[in-house]
Amino acid sequence: MKRRQFVGGLAAAATLGACAKEDGGCDGDAGPAGRTFEWSCVTSWPPKFPGLGMAPENLADRVEAASGGRLKIKVYGAGELVPAFEVFDAVSRGTVEMGHGASYYHKGKVDAAQFFTAIPFGMTNLELNGWLYYGGGMALWRELYDPFNLVPLPTGNTGVQMGGWFNKEINSVNDLKGLKMRIPGLGGEVLRRAGGTPVTLPGSEIFTALQTGAIDATEWVGPYNDASFGLHKAARYYYYPGWQEPGPGLETIINKGAWDELPADLKEIVSTACQAISTDMAAEYTHGNATSLQQLKQDPKIDIRPFPPEVLGLLRSITRDVVDELMANDPAAAKIGKAYFDYLEIVAANSRIAEQAYLETRQG
Amino acid sequence: MKRRQFVGGLAAAATLGACAKEDGGCDGDAGPAGRTFEWSCVTSWPPKFPGLGMAPENLADRVEAASGGRLKIKVYGAGELVPAFEVFDAVSRGTVEMGHGASYYHKGKVDAAQFFTAIPFGMTNLELNGWLYYGGGMALWRELYDPFNLVPLPTGNTGVQMGGWFNKEINSVNDLKGLKMRIPGLGGEVLRRAGGTPVTLPGSEIFTALQTGAIDATEWVGPYNDASFGLHKAARYYYYPGWQEPGPGLETIINKGAWDELPADLKEIVSTACQAISTDMAAEYTHGNATSLQQLKQDPKIDIRPFPPEVLGLLRSITRDVVDELMANDPAAAKIGKAYFDYLEIVAANSRIAEQAYLETRQG
Repeated sequence: MKRRQFVGGLAAAATLGACAKEDGGCDGDAGPAGRTFEWSCVTSWPPKFPGLGMAPENLADRVEAASGGRLKIKVYGAGELVPAFEVFDAVSRGTVEMGHGASYYHKGKVDAAQFFTAIPFGMTNLELNGWLYYGGGMALWRELYDPFNLVPLPTGNTGVQMGGWFNKEINSVNDLKGLKMRIPGLGGEVLRRAGGTPVTLPGSEIFTALQTGAIDATEWVGPYNDASFGLHKAARYYYYPGWQEPGPGLETIINKGAWDELPADLKEIVSTACQAISTDMAAEYTHGNATSLQQLKQDPKIDIRPFPPEVLGLLRSITRDVVDELMANDPAAAKIGKAYFDYLEIVAANSRIAEQAYLETRQG
Repeated sequence: MKRRQFVGGLAAAATLGACAKEDGGCDGDAGPAGRTFEWSCVTSWPPKFPGLGMAPENLADRVEAASGGRLKIKVYGAGELVPAFEVFDAVSRGTVEMGHGASYYHKGKVDAAQFFTAIPFGMTNLELNGWLYYGGGMALWRELYDPFNLVPLPTGNTGVQMGGWFNKEINSVNDLKGLKMRIPGLGGEVLRRAGGTPVTLPGSEIFTALQTGAIDATEWVGPYNDASFGLHKAARYYYYPGWQEPGPGLETIINKGAWDELPADLKEIVSTACQAISTDMAAEYTHGNATSLQQLKQDPKIDIRPFPPEVLGLLRSITRDVVDELMANDPAAAKIGKAYFDYLEIVAANSRIAEQAYLETRQG
C-alpha cells in the first residue's frame, strides 16, 4: 500500500503541499487547502484481522484516496504502538491522532460508553444506527467524550454475534452453574450472576484454553471470525445463537486538537468515510459469516442449537438488574441508558413487524 | 442550501477554479485538481421525499462538502427535468450526468437489473450488500450496465417493506381472487397469477384510489412513508408485514463519460459518499418507521396481522415460477439470477441463526 511509504509525523507534514487558499482558491472555502496531514491510528485489533482490523485499514485507504493524499493515516495493530485497551488514553492525550476500537472497552473510565457498543438483549446494527444518526444518540456520545478531548465517529458493526461454542450442552439454568466461559463485559457479569465463571482472555489465547479444558465455553464473534481461530476444532461441538452482543458498533475516536486542525473538506471526508465503512464492514461480516457457516456445516459433528427459553429468560432478567445498577451508579449512564431503552422500545416494535416478520415469512 | 446557488452547466464549470496540477500539486496525484464540475442528478422521487428523495440530496451535500466545492450536484425531483421512469435513459444518453432511483424500474429495457433492487422472498438490506460488495454482485451489475454507458453505485436501501394496507382481511387464498391492489413489479405479477388484479399507480394517487374504493389494497413502503401519505386513514384498517420487497437497494447511476472525466480523488469521494448514504438512509428509515409505527399504534382501529401461512406458501411458490420465467427468457437474467439465488441460500442460512434467532430471543 502506497500509504505505508509515509511515516513522518505532523511536523514533516507541514512542509508538504503548496496550494494556499490565496493562490487560487482551489479548495473553495475549505480552509488551508494545500496542507497535508499524516496521522497515526492505533487500534484494539490484531493487524488486518478480518472485519474488525480491516475496517481501519479500509478507512485509511478511502481517506487517502478521497483527499488526494492530503490526509494519510498509518494504522497500528494492538500492541504495535499501544496495547489494545489503551487506545482511548493514547488518543485522549494526543499521543496519536486517531483510534479504532469499541466504546465498551472504556468501562471503568467512562462506564456509560457501553451503550454505544452493545447491551445484552439490546439494539441490533440497524437499530443502533437509527438511534445514533436520527434518534439523538450521537449528541449524547459527543457530550460524553467531550471532557476527554475525543470526537467519536461510528465506524462499523459486526452484526449479531453468536452465543458461542460450548463443550457441553446447555439444557437448563443448572448447566450454567460453574460454567467457565470466556465472555467479557456486561454479558460476563450476567453469566457470573447466573452462577458461571466469566473469564477474560485475548482472542489469541481462546483456542488453547478451550481445547485444554481450561474453559468450558467461549464466545468470540461469529462464524467468520470464529472459524479463523479454529474454535470449531477446539469445542465439542455445540454452537449457540447470541444474546449478549446483538450488533456491537465500533468507533473511530479522534483527538479534538487534531480534528480542529483539519479543514472543512477533510473533516467531511473523514466522517463520510467512517459512515461508508459501516456499510462495508457489515457487508464483509455478512459475506464472511455466510461462507464460513457453509464450511462449518460440512462437519456433521457441529451442532447448532438454541438455548432453552428458561435459560434465556434468566439471562434476560439478570441483564435488566445489571443495567439498572450501571445506571444507578453513574449519572451519565442513567441519562444515556434512559434514552437507549426508550428508543429500544419503539424500534424493537418495528423490527418485530419488519425484519423479524419477514425472516420468519421467508423461512416458511 | 448553498449548493442551490449554482445552476450553471458543465460549460460554466470550466471557468471556475484555478489550481492546476503544475501550480503546486495541491491535490497530489488526483488528476486535474483545480477543475470544478457541476452535475445534474435526476431522480425517480418526489423532491425531498422522506428517505428515498432525501438520499440524493444528502449525497449531493456530502460530495460538495468533501470536495471543497469542486463537484456540485443539483438534484431534480421526478418530473422536474425528466419523468420518474426516464432516469435511466437520460443518464445513459448523457443528457444529465447522474441519476438516483431503483434498478427494477428498468424492467423491459434491462430485465436482469431487477435482481439488484429486490426479489420477493429474496435478500434483505444486509444480505444484498454482502452479495454486492463481497460476493461478486457488483461485478455483475457493472457488466450489465456497461453497454448503456452507465456506472452503477449502490446508494441506500429502504429495509423490509410492509405488505400493505387492505380494506378487507386476507384469511385465505380465496381472498386474493379479484383483489385490486396497487403493487408494482414482480410482486404485482405474483398477485396476478394468484387471482388478483395488480394496479400501477404513482404514490401521489394511492390515497384517493384506496379511499374511494377504486383499489382494495395497496403496498407502498413502510410506516414512515405510508403515514406521510395518510394511507392508514384511507384503508379500513388491516396492515400486513411484507414479502414482496424485503430490502430494496437503490442505485446511483453515472454516465460513463462524465465519470471518466473525474479525477481519482473525486471518484473516490463519490463512491465513498454513496456507500455512506447507504448507512444513513437505513438509519433514517429505521428511525422514521419506528416513530411512525408508534404514532399509528395510537389508533386502536389499526389491525396489524400476519398473512396466513397458506397465503404466503402460495405467493412463495408463484414467485419461484415468475423468477424462473424471467431467467429462462433472458441470458443476463439467467446468469445474474443464478448468482443471486446461490448467494441467497448461504446468506439466509446465516441470517436464520444470527438476526432471526436473535430477534426471536429478544422477543422472549
